[in-house]
Amino acid sequence: MNKILVIGLMSGTSVDGIDAALVEICDRRGMITTNLIAGHTYEYDADLRKEILAVCAGEPRSLQQICELDDRVAESFAQAAIAIMEKGDRIPNLIASHGQTVFHRPPEFREEEDGKTELGYSVQLGRGAVIAELTGLKTISDFRTADIEAGGQGAPLVSMVDALLLTDPHKYRACQNIGGISNVTYLPPSSMPKHHEVFGFDNGAGNVLLDMAVQKLFGEPFDRDGAIARQGEADLVLINQWLEQEFFVTEPPKSTGRELFSPAYLEKCLAECHDLSNYDIMATLTEFTARAIYKSYNEFLPVFPDEVLISGGGSHNRYLIERLQELMYPTEVMSIDKLGISTDSKEAIAFAVLGYLRLKKRNGNLPSVTGAMRSVLLGKIFP
Amino acid sequence: MNKILVIGLMSGTSVDGIDAALVEICDRRGMITTNLIAGHTYEYDADLRKEILAVCAGEPRSLQQICELDDRVAESFAQAAIAIMEKGDRIPNLIASHGQTVFHRPPEFREEEDGKTELGYSVQLGRGAVIAELTGLKTISDFRTADIEAGGQGAPLVSMVDALLLTDPHKYRACQNIGGISNVTYLPPSSMPKHHEVFGFDNGAGNVLLDMAVQKLFGEPFDRDGAIARQGEADLVLINQWLEQEFFVTEPPKSTGRELFSPAYLEKCLAECHDLSNYDIMATLTEFTARAIYKSYNEFLPVFPDEVLISGGGSHNRYLIERLQELMYPTEVMSIDKLGISTDSKEAIAFAVLGYLRLKKRNGNLPSVTGAMRSVLLGKIFP
Repeated sequence: MNKILVIGLMSGTSVDGIDAALVEICDRRGMITTNLIAGHTYEYDADLRKEILAVCAGEPRSLQQICELDDRVAESFAQAAIAIMEKGDRIPNLIASHGQTVFHRPPEFREEEDGKTELGYSVQLGRGAVIAELTGLKTISDFRTADIEAGGQGAPLVSMVDALLLTDPHKYRACQNIGGISNVTYLPPSSMPKHHEVFGFDNGAGNVLLDMAVQKLFGEPFDRDGAIARQGEADLVLINQWLEQEFFVTEPPKSTGRELFSPAYLEKCLAECHDLSNYDIMATLTEFTARAIYKSYNEFLPVFPDEVLISGGGSHNRYLIERLQELMYPTEVMSIDKLGISTDSKEAIAFAVLGYLRLKKRNGNLPSVTGAMRSVLLGKIFP
Repeated sequence: MNKILVIGLMSGTSVDGIDAALVEICDRRGMITTNLIAGHTYEYDADLRKEILAVCAGEPRSLQQICELDDRVAESFAQAAIAIMEKGDRIPNLIASHGQTVFHRPPEFREEEDGKTELGYSVQLGRGAVIAELTGLKTISDFRTADIEAGGQGAPLVSMVDALLLTDPHKYRACQNIGGISNVTYLPPSSMPKHHEVFGFDNGAGNVLLDMAVQKLFGEPFDRDGAIARQGEADLVLINQWLEQEFFVTEPPKSTGRELFSPAYLEKCLAECHDLSNYDIMATLTEFTARAIYKSYNEFLPVFPDEVLISGGGSHNRYLIERLQELMYPTEVMSIDKLGISTDSKEAIAFAVLGYLRLKKRNGNLPSVTGAMRSVLLGKIFP
C-alpha cells in the first residue's frame, strides 16, 4: 500500500478564495482512497480578488501587470499551503495546485482545414515555480494545458477523480458540482461492461449568475440557503427560452466559464425579466440553474442516474437542492458529504488526487470527458 | 554519426519578422556541426507587427486579446516553417521555435527572504502546440521558462550554441550578437583548463534604440550602413554619463529587453541631447552602442578576446562595426560569416541546435551564463 500526504489547492470561477485540502492518499494497487486531514478556504486579499475579477471580466492590463498578478496569486496559494500544512503532523510530500482560472476558451472545430481543431486556451494564474520556491515543497500545477494541447477542452478534469473515488458497483451515479460553473460526471456502475463510459461536461452557470444577481438586486454577497429565491415565483416561459441557447443544446464535450456567464449575460437576463419582482428574478435564475442541470441529464446522459451527488458551494443553497430533488424524483439527490467526502473540499481533494496521478506518471484526463484526442499526463512538476 | 534536419525559428526584440533556418545538424559523438540549407526572414503582417509592438510597449489588452495574439503569432511561425521547408528536399525531423518575446523581467535577489530569488518572467508568444498542429511536425518551443524556473535569467541562451560551434582551440573569442539587444558570449580556448568558463550576458541596446531614433528623427526604418551616424559627431561626455547607468555597471549574469530600452528611455536620451543636431544624435547613440559593448568586455571578461565575431542585424551597420574595430584594436572584429555561419540566420540556427539538444535530452542552459542554480533541459515538446 502506497500512502502519501498531499496538499490540494483550488480556486474556482467564483474567486471566493483558495480551497486548501490536506489529504492522505492511499493507493492499494490502483484503488485510491482519500482521507481529509484538514480543509479550509483562505480568502483572497480584497484588492487581489478585485483585480482577478477585473481580469476575468476582460479588463485590459499590460503584460507586466498580468505577470505581477500571476506572482501575487502564486504567493497567496503558497501562503494557503503553508497554513494548511500546519494543521498536519508531518511535512507533505507534494502540493497539487490548480491555480486561478482567469480565461477559458473551448476548442473549435475548423471545417475548412481538414478537420483540424483550433485549440482551446485556458489560463490559470499562480505559477507552480513560485509556489515551489516559497514553500520548499515539490509542486505540480498547470493541469489543464496538456489536455488542451491534445485537442481537449481542458475541462472538466475532476471527472477522472470522481470515477476513481465514487463509482458504485451497481448504481448509475451523477456527480454534480455546483461551483461558479456547474459540471457533471456520469458514472456507470463498475459492474457494467467497459463500453459504458464515464463522461462529463459543464452544464450551466452554477453560482456565478446567482451571486452576481443577488449582489446587484439585494446587496447580499450570496443568497444564503436560497432564502430569497424561495420567496419568489419562477417564470418558466423565460427559462425555457434561455435553455434553447447554443451552450445548452450543444452536445458534450463542452466547457464554459465567466466568458459566457458574464456581467453582460446577466444584464441580458435581467432586461428580459423586466416585469418581474426582484424575488421573482432570483427564483427564475435559481430555477434556470436547476433546470439546466436536469435538462442536460435528460438530453445527454445515456441513462438517467439513480443517485446524484452534489458538491460545491451550490450544495449549501437548500432551495436549489430542493428544486433539483423535485425535478429529479425518484432519483436521490444528496450532498456528497453523505459518502464521507467534504463538499467544500471536494475540488481541492480532486486536484490532490490528480497531482498524485501525475507523480505516479498515470494519465489524468478522460478523453471521453474532455474530448482530447488521447489520454495524457496532466500537470507540470516543479522544481 | 547522427544527422537530422531541423527548422529553427526566431523573432528577436526588433520584431522585424521571423528568421527561419533549415539546418542540417551533424552530431559526431557530441561534436556538433551545422549546415544551413536555407535561411530566410519572413516579415510579419503589418497589423500583427503593430499589435506585437503595442503589447511589448506595455499597452493594456484583455487576456482574450493576448491569447488571440499568441495564436496569430503561432500561425505566422507555422507559415514560416512551411515556407522554409519547401526549400529543402525532405521533411524535417523537428521544428525548434523560440517564439516572439513580448515581456522579459530578470530575476531579483530578495535579501529579506533567506536569499530566495524572485523568479524572473519571460513571455514568448507563438505556442508550440499550435505550430505542431498546423505543420504536423514535432515542435519544441518555450525555451526560456525552465531556466527561469531554475532561478536563471532565461537569457542569453545562444551562448551554449556558441560554445558548441565556435570555440577555438587557442584563441579567446567573443561572439557578439547585435540584434534588438546586444549580447556577448565569452569563449575561452578549448585548450584551457576547465575552470576557464564560458559565460555571457546582455551588454546593451543593440539596434532597438538606433532604429527608434532614426525613425523619429529621419523617418527612415533604420540607419542603413550607419550612413547617417557617420555624418555626425558623438558627444562623449553624454555617453560616459549614460554608461554609468545601473544596467551597464551591474555585474553579469544580466539580461534586458524593450522594458529598459523603451520609447521612454529614448525620449530621455533625446532630451539630454538638446543642443545636438540630428546627425550628431545618431552618431552619439551609435557610439553609445559600441562603447557599451567595449566597456563590458573591459570590465566583465576575464581576458580581453583575441577575436570578436559579430552577428545579428547590427553586423550590417558598417559604421558601427568600424567603431568597434577601432575601439577594440588590435583585437580582430569580424562578421561571423567569415566562419561559414550566416549572420542573418545565426539566432535561428542556434535555436535549431537547442531544439536538437532537447530532443537528445541534453541540458541546454549554461548556469554560468544565465545564473540558474542548475543545468536543465530547455524547451517543451509538442505533441
